[in-house]
Amino acid sequence: MGLAAGYEAWLITVGNEVLIGRIVNTNMAWLGRKLTLLGYKVDRGLIVPDELEDIAWAFKTAIKAKVKIVISTGGLGPTFDDKTAEGLALALGSRLELNEEAFKMVKEKYESKGLELTEHRIKMAMLPSGAEPIPNPVGTAPGIHVKAGETDIFCLPGVPKEMEAIFEESVEPYLKRIGPPVVFVERTLEVRGLPESGLAPAIEEVVKKHGVYVKSHPRGAELKVPMILLHITSSGLNKEEAVRKVEEALEQLKRFILEKGGHIGK
Amino acid sequence: MGLAAGYEAWLITVGNEVLIGRIVNTNMAWLGRKLTLLGYKVDRGLIVPDELEDIAWAFKTAIKAKVKIVISTGGLGPTFDDKTAEGLALALGSRLELNEEAFKMVKEKYESKGLELTEHRIKMAMLPSGAEPIPNPVGTAPGIHVKAGETDIFCLPGVPKEMEAIFEESVEPYLKRIGPPVVFVERTLEVRGLPESGLAPAIEEVVKKHGVYVKSHPRGAELKVPMILLHITSSGLNKEEAVRKVEEALEQLKRFILEKGGHIGK
Repeated sequence: MGLAAGYEAWLITVGNEVLIGRIVNTNMAWLGRKLTLLGYKVDRGLIVPDELEDIAWAFKTAIKAKVKIVISTGGLGPTFDDKTAEGLALALGSRLELNEEAFKMVKEKYESKGLELTEHRIKMAMLPSGAEPIPNPVGTAPGIHVKAGETDIFCLPGVPKEMEAIFEESVEPYLKRIGPPVVFVERTLEVRGLPESGLAPAIEEVVKKHGVYVKSHPRGAELKVPMILLHITSSGLNKEEAVRKVEEALEQLKRFILEKGGHIGK
Repeated sequence: MGLAAGYEAWLITVGNEVLIGRIVNTNMAWLGRKLTLLGYKVDRGLIVPDELEDIAWAFKTAIKAKVKIVISTGGLGPTFDDKTAEGLALALGSRLELNEEAFKMVKEKYESKGLELTEHRIKMAMLPSGAEPIPNPVGTAPGIHVKAGETDIFCLPGVPKEMEAIFEESVEPYLKRIGPPVVFVERTLEVRGLPESGLAPAIEEVVKKHGVYVKSHPRGAELKVPMILLHITSSGLNKEEAVRKVEEALEQLKRFILEKGGHIGK
């Protein structure tokens, strides 16, 4: 994608409900989009069940790959199968301990509602040693931030509105601060009347010539009424240059489509 | 989940569009649900970019884990960034070769429409040596089936209706034949007026006592108007037993909820 090297991000989803297809993984799409727009290259998505060894595997694999950023969602709540903090501790070779700051956050939330601090509620304040809690402006379980070598690891809850709130309030500003100063430019082009395989040579040429990324999404049927959505993206340190590259690629694609008797939607 | 051991399945998604969040991964949810209902334990989801090394990594990791079934989606089309077959060949230590049967499938599709067989179209008939094509009743790119040791690997296109058609016509009957003779039973229970952390002890007890799997999905706000959806599942070789376990777990949960002053939705 031509993004600044060294800014790879991995996304981890913890949760059987995603693996058994009870829930569609909208969290991963939301985070993928956010990170891409921030200039990070989202390089891997790992989905693991609510099992300690599997969760630890995901974090260990990401740490070993020396990526810049790892963000997990899910497994931070009060129930027995919320094991992300423990799995992360296992991956880090550390142990869970009661984090004073997290305990204060959880305590305040429940006490303000007149609810007692049960064992299950206190569990949400148990973090891997060396980790920091991230305030949850919407729910009760704090997020987790910890560094492993050069890798920043963030664990967020699986409830979308809590995940999004913590990300936007705390994680995004941090990522902007440490991230690449890149811009991301995208355009789409709707093509009718040409099969994807007929467009393939032009796409290949445009990608090579303009250094953009072009992805074709077949929407109709290749041999019936083909409709292809082309997604042209470019990113770089210079906004004018990224825009120019995408626009030039777009023009060349349009010429090719019209020459071949295709139609342009929008 | 109490499923028959030895029937682990991994899902692989190939495609930058999923990683950058342009597309929500509905294919993985659809396949996860199908495999779960067939009695397989979906144990991992891996999402990789359209890069040879990354695709090969996903297949290699799955083969090394000796899982029963691997299903990938995406990367089988005619464009330059469709690299799943090549990545699979790399993982298998084999090479791509023109598969006569696949070539016939692709040739017939295009010739019936009076379209010539270009290099990009022939590419869809290049399979890893030893692999077999799977007919695509809806589109042009055949699926791929290959065995690696005890692992059955299936590669399906990323276009949902093509993926679903190939799965239902060819893959599902195969998986039923080689799969576990298990049934999968599920119930849901809507709980109002109790926070998730208040339910946690009851869930833990029910899981231990009845050998079911209970997942709680917070829908409202833990401290405001809590609404929790409980998803209770069981699976086993005996249908009556699986149903009994889930029903008993459901009854115990209902008693607990009413005792604690909560309400049951449905």
